[in-house]
Order: sequence, then C-alpha cells, then structure tokens
Amino acid sequence: MEKNDEFRAIGPCTYLCPIPAVMLGCADPENGLKPNLITVAWTGIVCSKPPMLSVSLRKSRYSYDIIRRTGEFTLNLISQELCRATDFCGVKSGWDMDKFEALGLTAVAAPPLTVAPALGEAPAYLSCKVKSVTELGSHDLFLAEILEVHVADRFFRSDGSIDEPKMKLVGYVHGTYYALSDALGFFGYSVASPEAQRRRENK
Amino acid sequence: MEKNDEFRAIGPCTYLCPIPAVMLGCADPENGLKPNLITVAWTGIVCSKPPMLSVSLRKSRYSYDIIRRTGEFTLNLISQELCRATDFCGVKSGWDMDKFEALGLTAVAAPPLTVAPALGEAPAYLSCKVKSVTELGSHDLFLAEILEVHVADRFFRSDGSIDEPKMKLVGYVHGTYYALSDALGFFGYSVASPEAQRRRENK
Repeated sequence: MEKNDEFRAIGPCTYLCPIPAVMLGCADPENGLKPNLITVAWTGIVCSKPPMLSVSLRKSRYSYDIIRRTGEFTLNLISQELCRATDFCGVKSGWDMDKFEALGLTAVAAPPLTVAPALGEAPAYLSCKVKSVTELGSHDLFLAEILEVHVADRFFRSDGSIDEPKMKLVGYVHGTYYALSDALGFFGYSVASPEAQRRRENK
Repeated sequence: MEKNDEFRAIGPCTYLCPIPAVMLGCADPENGLKPNLITVAWTGIVCSKPPMLSVSLRKSRYSYDIIRRTGEFTLNLISQELCRATDFCGVKSGWDMDKFEALGLTAVAAPPLTVAPALGEAPAYLSCKVKSVTELGSHDLFLAEILEVHVADRFFRSDGSIDEPKMKLVGYVHGTYYALSDALGFFGYSVASPEAQRRRENK
C-alpha cells in the first residue's frame, strides 16, 4: 500500500458529497395540523426491500417532535426553481412562521399518509412512515419505510418513463447547492455491449 | 390541504435523488489484506457530532464480511474521470478480481485506519470505523464514525480553502450518473445580506 502523501487531513467532518438537500413535509398535531417544511441533507437510502431511508434531525428542531408524534413525513425532491425556498426552509424555523405561507407554496395530500403534506411544487415526493428512532449524538436517526412515491405529471414522457433531466435536480456539496448537468452514463454502462448502450441511450 | 391530482404514483421505491455514488475501500484479512473497492449509493450522513455516516450493503457482497471483520472502511468521493471505474466497481465483484489492479488504480494508506485502503485517485476520502450493524431486509445498515477526512493537495487554494467545483463531482439519480455544474448558492444565501453574499461569493 502506498503512502498518502498527496492528501491533506482536514479533520473528522461530514465531508460526504454530493448529498441530497430535500424538503421534509410534516404536520403539527398540536397546532391544528399546521403544515411545515424543513430542509434535510442528513438523509440517504438504507434498504431496497423494503424501500427505506434515513433522516437525521436535532431534537431542538420544530419538526422533531412532530415526526415523533405523527410517525410520518414526506421527502420532497427539489428543482433549481425551489433552491432558494429550500435554503430558506433550512435556515428559518417552523416555531416562528408558517413556511408554506411565507413562501407561497402549496401543501398537498400525500397518500397513503394521513396528516403529513407533500410540497405541490416538488418534482416528486416520497411518503414515509417512521420505523425507529436512535440517538446518535447531535442528531437522532429516524429510519423510515417509503410507502409510496409520487412524480409530478409534467415529468412523464409519452412512453411512461420519467424525464429526470427535466427535473433540474440540485445536489448539496459541503455548504453549497449545485445544479446537476450532463448525464455521464447509466448504471452498468462500463460493461454494457455497444448495442445495450445504444438501446438505453436512445430511450 | 389540496389534492395531489398533478402527481402520479409509481409505487414504493428508493427514489431519493441525487444521492452520492462513492467507492468504498476495504481490505480482506482472509486474503493477505487484498484491497477491494465497491461502489455504494446507499449512504448518507447521519450525525454531525460525532460525525457519522451510514452505508448499507447486501450480505452477499464480497465486502460485507470484510467490513464486519475489520470494522473499518474508507469512502472515496468520485470525480467525472472516475465515473467509469465507479460504475465498474458497482457491477463487478471482488470475489472474481482485484479491482484496483483491473482498473490500474492505487491503494493508499488511510490513517488512522490500519488495514482499509483509500483510493489514491480520489479527490477526497473519509476514514470510517464501524459502530453498529443492523439488519433491515435486503440490506444491512452499517453506522460508522468518520475518524478523519483527507482531501487531495491539488484541490486546495492558496488561502487553504478547498476548491470543490474543481473536483468535478458526480451525483447519482435513479440509475444514472450526472455531472455537477453551476453553484446555485451557499447555505443561508436566501436570507444573507447583500454584503455577506458578496463576501462569500468572492471567496
């Protein structure tokens, strides 16, 4: 094994990137089911069958108790047009305002969930049910099952496939939001036959 | 709450995006510490203090037993130049080949880890120690503490800050790798004063 003398240590930190920056939707049962949005970057897929993801939250966040009580939330993918609102929902607290109202955004029903809203302006959203909560330190880890996924009608092609480039998704890199641009390849492209390659890329 | 009649259900699935596609490095104690790389997209940050992340793996993967036995691994960020290798390491198995050798890649020491290698060609890597393993279904969830982060020398600016756009990072969207392009804003930009905005953007 070679030495790592072309690298510099920057200390232990959360330097995984790019990661998602998505808007979590929930509704406050203590407050007339007031809908709230909070931006989370500490999230990721943890299982394929059943489909599950993780979300980590500080106990001090307004949404923390809501999610513990209701056991459900949505994760809303974000487009470039939603980037400023996403940032706003990561900085401002639901203790102080109705963020849907402040941003002129729309809360829509998120079946099969009963109380948590989805973001009507999102390109897609995941309806999630909490399975466990674990204390880790600054953050508690929520593991949740993805019960359903909804994609906005406008992103379906006529053949029923989903036009993800059209979503203009946003990635988060160590404190900065970035636009996604060119597709570099599909899963398996490094070993695909030229014919499979053509078939897939013409889709 | 409004109806969601502008959305179409696509069934429960792992539709969180973009997510990272990173190369996990480990070394096989049963096989002369042969280094291995496996691509993981089921990963995310789960805690800030201590810095922790999750990685989910199927029990059948070559790297699964290695990580359980050694309790350590690296996560290597990937650049566009590494995209094809990343895909290859997600498709091919360490049971069948030495992927470092097959791809002409370099295994480097990853202090403070003792056996797991980092990828010398990566723009940055995280040295991780396993804290727990939980069965979820198709995948087991590894929670790990990030003990150290190394960034390649060539990405430091003269003022010591890190030039992340130069890394040309790659995001993963539902089976396709995408290049990251323009920065859209920094965390807090939606509420920053014009002066703070200028200061930050000139950095």
